Amino acid sequence: MKIIIHGIAGRMGAEVARLTEEGFRGAELHAGVDLGGNASGFPCFQSLDQVPPGADCIVDFSNHSATKTLLAYACKTKTPVVLATTGHSEKELALIREAAREIPVFFSANMSLGVALLAEMAKKAAAIYPDANIEIVEIHHNRKLDAPSGTALLLANAIKEIRRSASFVLGRSGHGKRTEEEIGIHAIRMGNIVGTHEILISTDAETITLKHEAHSRALFAEGALAAAAFLCGKPAGLYQMRDMISF
Amino acid sequence: MKIIIHGIAGRMGAEVARLTEEGFRGAELHAGVDLGGNASGFPCFQSLDQVPPGADCIVDFSNHSATKTLLAYACKTKTPVVLATTGHSEKELALIREAAREIPVFFSANMSLGVALLAEMAKKAAAIYPDANIEIVEIHHNRKLDAPSGTALLLANAIKEIRRSASFVLGRSGHGKRTEEEIGIHAIRMGNIVGTHEILISTDAETITLKHEAHSRALFAEGALAAAAFLCGKPAGLYQMRDMISF
Amino acid sequence: MKIIIHGIAGRMGAEVARLTEEGFRGAELHAGVDLGGNASGFPCFQSLDQVPPGADCIVDFSNHSATKTLLAYACKTKTPVVLATTGHSEKELALIREAAREIPVFFSANMSLGVALLAEMAKKAAAIYPDANIEIVEIHHNRKLDAPSGTALLLANAIKEIRRSASFVLGRSGHGKRTEEEIGIHAIRMGNIVGTHEILISTDAETITLKHEAHSRALFAEGALAAAAFLCGKPAGLYQMRDMISF
Amino acid sequence: MKIIIHGIAGRMGAEVARLTEEGFRGAELHAGVDLGGNASGFPCFQSLDQVPPGADCIVDFSNHSATKTLLAYACKTKTPVVLATTGHSEKELALIREAAREIPVFFSANMSLGVALLAEMAKKAAAIYPDANIEIVEIHHNRKLDAPSGTALLLANAIKEIRRSASFVLGRSGHGKRTEEEIGIHAIRMGNIVGTHEILISTDAETITLKHEAHSRALFAEGALAAAAFLCGKPAGLYQMRDMISF
Repeated sequence: MKIIIHGIAGRMGAEVARLTEEGFRGAELHAGVDLGGNASGFPCFQSLDQVPPGADCIVDFSNHSATKTLLAYACKTKTPVVLATTGHSEKELALIREAAREIPVFFSANMSLGVALLAEMAKKAAAIYPDANIEIVEIHHNRKLDAPSGTALLLANAIKEIRRSASFVLGRSGHGKRTEEEIGIHAIRMGNIVGTHEILISTDAETITLKHEAHSRALFAEGALAAAAFLCGKPAGLYQMRDMISF
Repeated sequence: MKIIIHGIAGRMGAEVARLTEEGFRGAELHAGVDLGGNASGFPCFQSLDQVPPGADCIVDFSNHSATKTLLAYACKTKTPVVLATTGHSEKELALIREAAREIPVFFSANMSLGVALLAEMAKKAAAIYPDANIEIVEIHHNRKLDAPSGTALLLANAIKEIRRSASFVLGRSGHGKRTEEEIGIHAIRMGNIVGTHEILISTDAETITLKHEAHSRALFAEGALAAAAFLCGKPAGLYQMRDMISF
Repeated sequence: MKIIIHGIAGRMGAEVARLTEEGFRGAELHAGVDLGGNASGFPCFQSLDQVPPGADCIVDFSNHSATKTLLAYACKTKTPVVLATTGHSEKELALIREAAREIPVFFSANMSLGVALLAEMAKKAAAIYPDANIEIVEIHHNRKLDAPSGTALLLANAIKEIRRSASFVLGRSGHGKRTEEEIGIHAIRMGNIVGTHEILISTDAETITLKHEAHSRALFAEGALAAAAFLCGKPAGLYQMRDMISF
Repeated sequence: MKIIIHGIAGRMGAEVARLTEEGFRGAELHAGVDLGGNASGFPCFQSLDQVPPGADCIVDFSNHSATKTLLAYACKTKTPVVLATTGHSEKELALIREAAREIPVFFSANMSLGVALLAEMAKKAAAIYPDANIEIVEIHHNRKLDAPSGTALLLANAIKEIRRSASFVLGRSGHGKRTEEEIGIHAIRMGNIVGTHEILISTDAETITLKHEAHSRALFAEGALAAAAFLCGKPAGLYQMRDMISF
């Protein structure tokens, strides 16, 4: 699978380039593109138009403002594209939906394959254990400002898709019995932890724990390449992490 | 869901009876049956023939030797049956397959719903992470004689269904690099632990942990009632734990 | 070590009796005492005065109202005594302090040796890591009414003995950075968990986790026998769990 | 506390320099020394003789071959020194012992404060729970060649100081009951894990878990600065990590 890395000079683009050197998910670097035109150690063009034909997929870690140009190129060359940028305007989101009618486009709020897998597993467990108590524990570094984490809420909302009556409780103190429907969410802040999420599902007789630990932000680069491998050969359409799991 | 508990005077039968009192999985006790004819605190008949009609399902925790009589009654009355006994002869196994042509029969080597769920989740994770390293850790009480546990091997073999080239390594010592295909299996023996199984799936950037803890043998009673609820309304056929999860 | 079990017919007294059968901590049963005068399977007297001489220690799991009679007997016979009852009146507390001038008396708010060990370890870690972030997570069954648990507060207060400026935060939600001095305390409620406490101590480069899991209330019986073994041969005085650890 | 970093241009020296910028353990950079004479962003001399007087401690992450020159300077200026190099010759080890008669010298096979703390805690737990089963689990990246890790053996040997009859079992397979005296050691190899060590101590009624996770090799830099802070004001002598914990 030959990859164009769009935004190769950025931190995440460089991480994807490093993974292609290892052949991760069967990827190899077709070309790098960066406005700056320079990526330490990797071939790099200043614009997509300079890239020779023959790529199987584009992985985009540049900036949402480049979406229009990027999608025009991808549609013209019929190249599948993985969008790993965030912060798109309404207009850009419309362009993404439009392009997805012509080519396969991967676009996911969360580029972590592991978190998406955890969410689908949690839904499955919630369906199979209608009587179980569910709790979520997340750990992040001591500089994080918001609690709970967006990912913890993503996981809680995934469970709520199955357990419609679920309510979220952010920490516990005082007096009173837990209800069956509440999902406790606990935010631990300490040290330099990248991000750990744990879902606990417990009946009286057994407990199932589903845990995801991010060791470095490289997991977004790994997720983007997994998405690229998934996208190759798919028909036109808009895809997200959840589609890669398809329980 | 009205349940006949076959073998209600035994330890597991009594546990199922206790769960029906709580309405676990919507179950209520229709009748208990036990050769001894006596179950502390619960109504109990000496034989199935004495049971009034109207049951939705039979849960059997008696003995494999009672299988023939039990299946004859179940077929005659068109009552679904959950077999939670073990040690069946070839002849009894043939009777089970035969009955499953007429009525829904649930028969599973492992009556723990959680372990079955873990196995299916592990297969899913193995499929989604072809490059990841996989390890299994199990913990049991200090009286257990075999290592690794049968459940750890069940989980490892489930993963091998997906990762055909997997080989199992039972503990590690000495010098040498781990191969990509090996699955390390580690058997911890201590205290009075009922049974804990943990599957670790790790790339360089993230680790997913799937863990199952059995708190008491009541989990087999819970599993049997979950199976009963699953069986009601199903067509004739042979079902097992795996079918309840159906990823 | 020959033990008198005072309150042998109660649940915890019976547990201590069972442990003496295994020779736990070198204990053997000298005599059981219970007002009811009957303990299934163990010799039992109705009052201490009927017990033949020669015991090395008394373990008391009866009721605080029996403290006066018990201490009078212990002082008269110069027998060390482990008080594992709670709810003493001011008057009874005064009697305990008085008796401790004549004989060794063990009296601890918390009879779990493991929790006492965790508290001392946490203090040591807090002293050695003045810059670390500290968090506490506790898990209890879904019927528990108070949050956080008394034991979690005991652990937090032990840390505060070392880190005088520590403040406790019960769960987290909303916006804002964690302070260096805060100790987050998180109360998970699920299933039938007896009691799990975890202290996390993290710098940027390393995390230390100290965890205690209670598997059954038998740990109080184990703690009482460990206390009895500790008490034998000690001079008169008032002892508690902390003294058994003495870092 | 004003620090000379000897070997500041190396990876670990640079990490110590970065920590002094944060004021970690009250440290500030007095001067850097490196043969190359160049450390990105930090003042750096080519030799110790060029350093202005006034330092409180030297932290050495250079190379064991520089030990002789380093100790001569430290003795001449009466500056305490933390040796964080390895691979010393017999002759160099003799020089270290000699210098320790004149100045405080910190020299430890393992520069992780957390691992040293874990070892002392494990000894304490082993003393308090003579009947408990003990197991060790360690996790390292998939490139590690030896199993079990040196640190796991260090921890096991620390426990053996208390439990003299302990024997080590490296993984388990086959048939047979665990003996009371055996310590199971389990080596997990996966992903890019820096190093995790877990000691499990279990009776029938409770389990204590002592866990250390290294998030990055920066923990050796943190350990060296903790040692420097400990060394200031101490009398001449040879010190090691264990002395900082002193249960």
